[in-house]
Amino acid sequence: MELLENTLKQITGPNEEVKKQARDKWDSLLKPMGSLGTLEEVTIKIAGMTGKIINRIDKRAIVVMCADNGVVEEGVSSAPQIFTKVLTESMPKGITGVATLGKFTNTDVITVNLGVIGDIEDPRIINKKIKEGTQNFTKGPAMAYDEAVKSIEIGIEIGNKLYSEGYDILGTGEVGIGNTTTSAAVVSALSGLDVDLVCGKGAGLTEEQFRNKKAVIRRGIALNKPNKEDPIDVVAKVGGFDIGGMCGLFLSAAKNKKPIIIDGFISSAAAYCAVKLHPLVKEYIIPSHLSGEPGAKYILDELKLKPMLNLGMRLGEGTGCTLAFNIIEAGMYTLENMGTFDDVSLSSSPLVDIRED
Amino acid sequence: MELLENTLKQITGPNEEVKKQARDKWDSLLKPMGSLGTLEEVTIKIAGMTGKIINRIDKRAIVVMCADNGVVEEGVSSAPQIFTKVLTESMPKGITGVATLGKFTNTDVITVNLGVIGDIEDPRIINKKIKEGTQNFTKGPAMAYDEAVKSIEIGIEIGNKLYSEGYDILGTGEVGIGNTTTSAAVVSALSGLDVDLVCGKGAGLTEEQFRNKKAVIRRGIALNKPNKEDPIDVVAKVGGFDIGGMCGLFLSAAKNKKPIIIDGFISSAAAYCAVKLHPLVKEYIIPSHLSGEPGAKYILDELKLKPMLNLGMRLGEGTGCTLAFNIIEAGMYTLENMGTFDDVSLSSSPLVDIRED
Repeated sequence: MELLENTLKQITGPNEEVKKQARDKWDSLLKPMGSLGTLEEVTIKIAGMTGKIINRIDKRAIVVMCADNGVVEEGVSSAPQIFTKVLTESMPKGITGVATLGKFTNTDVITVNLGVIGDIEDPRIINKKIKEGTQNFTKGPAMAYDEAVKSIEIGIEIGNKLYSEGYDILGTGEVGIGNTTTSAAVVSALSGLDVDLVCGKGAGLTEEQFRNKKAVIRRGIALNKPNKEDPIDVVAKVGGFDIGGMCGLFLSAAKNKKPIIIDGFISSAAAYCAVKLHPLVKEYIIPSHLSGEPGAKYILDELKLKPMLNLGMRLGEGTGCTLAFNIIEAGMYTLENMGTFDDVSLSSSPLVDIRED
Repeated sequence: MELLENTLKQITGPNEEVKKQARDKWDSLLKPMGSLGTLEEVTIKIAGMTGKIINRIDKRAIVVMCADNGVVEEGVSSAPQIFTKVLTESMPKGITGVATLGKFTNTDVITVNLGVIGDIEDPRIINKKIKEGTQNFTKGPAMAYDEAVKSIEIGIEIGNKLYSEGYDILGTGEVGIGNTTTSAAVVSALSGLDVDLVCGKGAGLTEEQFRNKKAVIRRGIALNKPNKEDPIDVVAKVGGFDIGGMCGLFLSAAKNKKPIIIDGFISSAAAYCAVKLHPLVKEYIIPSHLSGEPGAKYILDELKLKPMLNLGMRLGEGTGCTLAFNIIEAGMYTLENMGTFDDVSLSSSPLVDIRED
């Protein structure tokens, strides 16, 4: 609990003066003010984090948090539970979606075992196993309160280590059959929104299975009564180790004043927990794509974050983050290298400001 | 007229069998079917164009069509007309938005002068000048019918040359003060939609200037009565050389069975003209981002094309295309390199199909 508490104490807001300087630099470039939209906004946000107008992404990674969920025995997923282990072990082999997109985008993929059922021997997978998966939350809490704290602190530790090793940006990914169920439960419990509004079909369910999934979440929340004022209690009672681990990564990014990317729904749920633990965490989070899961849109709206990509992706693993890295880097490169009005002998823009409020 | 007519005659549809094979290959990969969304769809579409399941982008370019518009004298733009020449000449200097993003994404930027007012000497700019800009369409047609044909045929020629030189994909860009006005006029005339629905504020206008812009477009359409059944007549009466040139690029892509990317609103208007000239052109067009101009959304909806990027960009020049190249290439790389269910000793996916209809 000490690492978590100390981390929360060390989180401060962005540097508003440097953000203003970054915006002024954008406004000196050879284009109508604001006309590069999100490319401008995202680099200004990052300038506020790092305290530098010009930033680069020399080193990037996706951290993939892997864990099993006991609630799978309620038939909430179309995929067999063994898939968590299969996909986790496939990460260092380079054959998964995020591993492939990672290679394409020069991104390191760091796989963390937080609680995958069965023995994983591959030394390339960071072993931080808390347990053989969580418990079925329709029969009691998914995990103990101190296990939830532990999962978050593992995320903080890994984030701190990576940022200290020189990673300029991290993306958040996960593997865990059943984790759209735990994520919907966490978001419903934390927001008070009805399960219908935040629960989707995950990797694919029939209508009957979908109704069952929602009923299972309702039962879990009714039985465990998670305290919506305490995200740790919510993660413990109806969440998962992967959500806790990613929540820790977001906290670490804010503490280290570095950017971190949301991928899909599970990652969004973890970001939501992190922002509930400290509202300034939001200032360090960048969204990537709009997941097909309905709860993801709710969280992004709530956090006032607009996804950059609209690709109808719903694979998870951190796949969306890899593509967002490239867009962010394009913005950074443009801010650093594009010509100014001076270059064409015009002292300032004759164009008006077209930014929308 | 002969080149245009011959090109239209040579356009055929995509190879549906190869599209099916590409989809089957995606479905063999280690993920829920359809879960990579647009990454899957766009590579399947390109497979249908080229007749090959596996495609790569080794060579890419944005063609920037540059021309002035006589209607600028009606006060429809916030930027002075000289900016067309300034930006055109800035392209080979590498200091514009698209030139900068082009460098970042390893994209060649090919600048074409179709009718910029004033002398342009730089030999790196392809000189295909038709005239010193178009006429003011509130006083008569913007150009003669055969000048519209000429602008389209220049686009076809340049596209044919580039595809024959080995470019795997092209993006469409433009420079031309006043060209959101001509594009709104073209889209309104071709679609029959009211000017209010398709006209936006371009690079920035006050409310009064915006009202004037819409009134100018209405006057131009009322005076010239463009024939909505003939896109060439529409381009001639209320369009611009840049729109004609880009229209030709789209036709060339379809004829050469190669992909081509839409950028923003002006590019969308040109794509709309091309599809009106031959409906199968649509099968070779890939959208990039959603422009802030309202007419862009109408055209993409009409062509059933969904933009990949949501970046609030409205710079034009082809800037959005550069970012789309990367997403498309990521899809191609994933299709070629991701692991299959065989790799994890599962003969086929135990996961259900989550594609939406």
